[in-house]
Amino acid sequence: MKVFKYPDRASWAEILKRPLFDSSLLEATVKNVLQEVRNEGDAAVRKFTLQFDKADIGDLRVSDKELEESENCLTLELKQAIGIAKNNIEKFHTAQMRTDEFVETMPGVQCWRKMIAIEKVGLYVPSGTAPLFSTILMLGIPARLAGCKQIVLCSPPGVDGKLHPAILFTAKMIGITKIFRVGGVQAIAAMSYGTESIPQVHKIFGPGNQYVTCAKQLVQKEGVAIDLPAGPSEVAVYADETADPRFIASDLLSQAEHGIDSQVLFVTTHSLLIDEVLKALDNQIVVLPRMNIAIKALENSKIILVKTGSDALDVINEYAPEHLILSCANADDIAEKVINAGSVFLGKYSPESVGDYASGTNHTLPTNGYAKAYSGVSVDSFVKKITFQKLTLEGLTNISTTVELMADAEGLIAHKNAVSIRKNSQ
Amino acid sequence: MKVFKYPDRASWAEILKRPLFDSSLLEATVKNVLQEVRNEGDAAVRKFTLQFDKADIGDLRVSDKELEESENCLTLELKQAIGIAKNNIEKFHTAQMRTDEFVETMPGVQCWRKMIAIEKVGLYVPSGTAPLFSTILMLGIPARLAGCKQIVLCSPPGVDGKLHPAILFTAKMIGITKIFRVGGVQAIAAMSYGTESIPQVHKIFGPGNQYVTCAKQLVQKEGVAIDLPAGPSEVAVYADETADPRFIASDLLSQAEHGIDSQVLFVTTHSLLIDEVLKALDNQIVVLPRMNIAIKALENSKIILVKTGSDALDVINEYAPEHLILSCANADDIAEKVINAGSVFLGKYSPESVGDYASGTNHTLPTNGYAKAYSGVSVDSFVKKITFQKLTLEGLTNISTTVELMADAEGLIAHKNAVSIRKNSQ
Repeated sequence: MKVFKYPDRASWAEILKRPLFDSSLLEATVKNVLQEVRNEGDAAVRKFTLQFDKADIGDLRVSDKELEESENCLTLELKQAIGIAKNNIEKFHTAQMRTDEFVETMPGVQCWRKMIAIEKVGLYVPSGTAPLFSTILMLGIPARLAGCKQIVLCSPPGVDGKLHPAILFTAKMIGITKIFRVGGVQAIAAMSYGTESIPQVHKIFGPGNQYVTCAKQLVQKEGVAIDLPAGPSEVAVYADETADPRFIASDLLSQAEHGIDSQVLFVTTHSLLIDEVLKALDNQIVVLPRMNIAIKALENSKIILVKTGSDALDVINEYAPEHLILSCANADDIAEKVINAGSVFLGKYSPESVGDYASGTNHTLPTNGYAKAYSGVSVDSFVKKITFQKLTLEGLTNISTTVELMADAEGLIAHKNAVSIRKNSQ
Repeated sequence: MKVFKYPDRASWAEILKRPLFDSSLLEATVKNVLQEVRNEGDAAVRKFTLQFDKADIGDLRVSDKELEESENCLTLELKQAIGIAKNNIEKFHTAQMRTDEFVETMPGVQCWRKMIAIEKVGLYVPSGTAPLFSTILMLGIPARLAGCKQIVLCSPPGVDGKLHPAILFTAKMIGITKIFRVGGVQAIAAMSYGTESIPQVHKIFGPGNQYVTCAKQLVQKEGVAIDLPAGPSEVAVYADETADPRFIASDLLSQAEHGIDSQVLFVTTHSLLIDEVLKALDNQIVVLPRMNIAIKALENSKIILVKTGSDALDVINEYAPEHLILSCANADDIAEKVINAGSVFLGKYSPESVGDYASGTNHTLPTNGYAKAYSGVSVDSFVKKITFQKLTLEGLTNISTTVELMADAEGLIAHKNAVSIRKNSQ
């Protein structure tokens, strides 16, 4: 990790800069796959699955029998763990449900707003080195709570054409049954345009590699909504002299093992902690199966030593990390002043990994500084909020002059007439 | 208007198709302006303002004196009308404010979610044939309620280099003072990248022409958030035999006068109403200052006669209109079944124009079928919802096995270790 000691405020922007990835280099390839799936449907999906995933798939949809059997392939302990995570995530996301807001803004002018589920949603669950079944909980639970009628799940098959039983078991547990063994750009294309087997959806959720990200960007331009713009996963840890260097090292490593492009930032007011953390990193990294990935990620990662807690907060708010761990004495006070972050973990017993899996909060969060303007996935992401209004004749009369004057001043006389005609019809 | 009587369900998609506008044709021009403002700052903004708006502007920012003086240029009646609209919009949007959600998902595992304002936002207010000051209310009021610290407003100047006093008065009334006489792509560029005079923002709101829309799309790809993807404004009216054809015609015209690409759809179960509405349109259109625009918009607009209210609902939900007027006996029941719309107006005394200006609901709404997945602008649009969690040692112990098992099954051993190290440190 690169260490910056008391850097000038003017140099922060440069230090905190994230690597730029230019997806336009992939666009031609991605556009071609999108177009072919749009034109050829299932046949193109099968072709690209053979080409990219080396899997020759017959039925794109996972059968009920496969879903049933998935249960037998998992240990009882893992199934229980997934069940506990599901309960916590359900509890936290249930608190996000809203009753309608109803306001009578003037006598006879009733306005309200209703949460209504997006009818058709698609969940993309990457696979690859490991089956990321936790993503199904994080996307599927709020989708079910919101009341989405059609939930489609796509995930890339192994070379045997199958999905991992942990994926199938988790999906089944939360009631998702429209599951397709399709990944990559072809999955995004199929959910965007629909094929003979795979239904078209209105919004697509889920992480993915650079091709999937590029495909989501392109279909968004065509009108399909997406959850979030994507970037590599990140953590920032802020620690003071009360922190345990071993805990900090373990948090930095849980981010670093995600991928060589993972962003890891450690900010501290306590200079002695730096060497202790570096030592703990060395000790802990050697036992990791994904050590080589973590080593590469740490090479591009940064440690910033600052004078005060207030400076640390400024660095953090400027960086806008996806995950923020506050391992310090006054974590509650510091947390109150965080304005840019995806999810915040307070105190020494709150590692990021509890939020990644099971505490209840969502792990689909804004990366790449997007936390300045975007929120993580929640029930909100699966609903639209539609406004309604109903005026009585009295209400219309009360508001008529206001609307007539404003419409007139904006030169929109038909807008004015729509009020005047009604008023004068009495 | 084109009339379709009892069309086959299979033909609906074709009938409801919106015209496709390909913004990629503008991209080269727009990219050039974006790039030049990024490199040259204020100088480029001035150059493009002279080129596109024919205005030679000195200070980009509107002075306090100009803001003060705007009050003298408006009639008392108009100022009062704007004040009434402001009050109603504030009332409705205040109901959207949220207290934090706090959930203890397991003993010792506390999770909560907080609404935090986006720090820096930019509001774009088009001008052109008329000063659209109502847009300032619709964007500025939720921005202020949310607590955005920096609110920047850009609007194109007239050839005299000035902004219309109604724009300035409205902005001042709701406490917006960072106002710039800059419009078009150069305004979007300035707010995205920042210039010497114009601050950079995290999210840009507001309608605009095709160039502005294209610029918003392009900066979104670079990480600046935007309110909504844009398209021409739309209304769908559903009416039965209880409706007044004059009212319907007035609503269709208030949409049609917006622009020649405005989308107007009239759905009815009552065939006799069609001729009556067409006749009322002919009567009302002739007195409109924007008659020629309305005539063109109506040429591309459609009337669909359906058998039942249920069919009408299906047509409407498939179309997903920005505005939906339900002029029918059982508007409340029908409204309950609307799943895709931006804003819904119930009954014969609820014309769209009351919502456009003053009833309290927001008029920045999803067009182009985006209502299937997007909501209109609200306080939500100006905040992020950040999640927080704090575990006690007991909480960590309670959840540890769950996280360890799941991380292990996903092959992420550093994630597992972050929990184990803490647990075993006791």
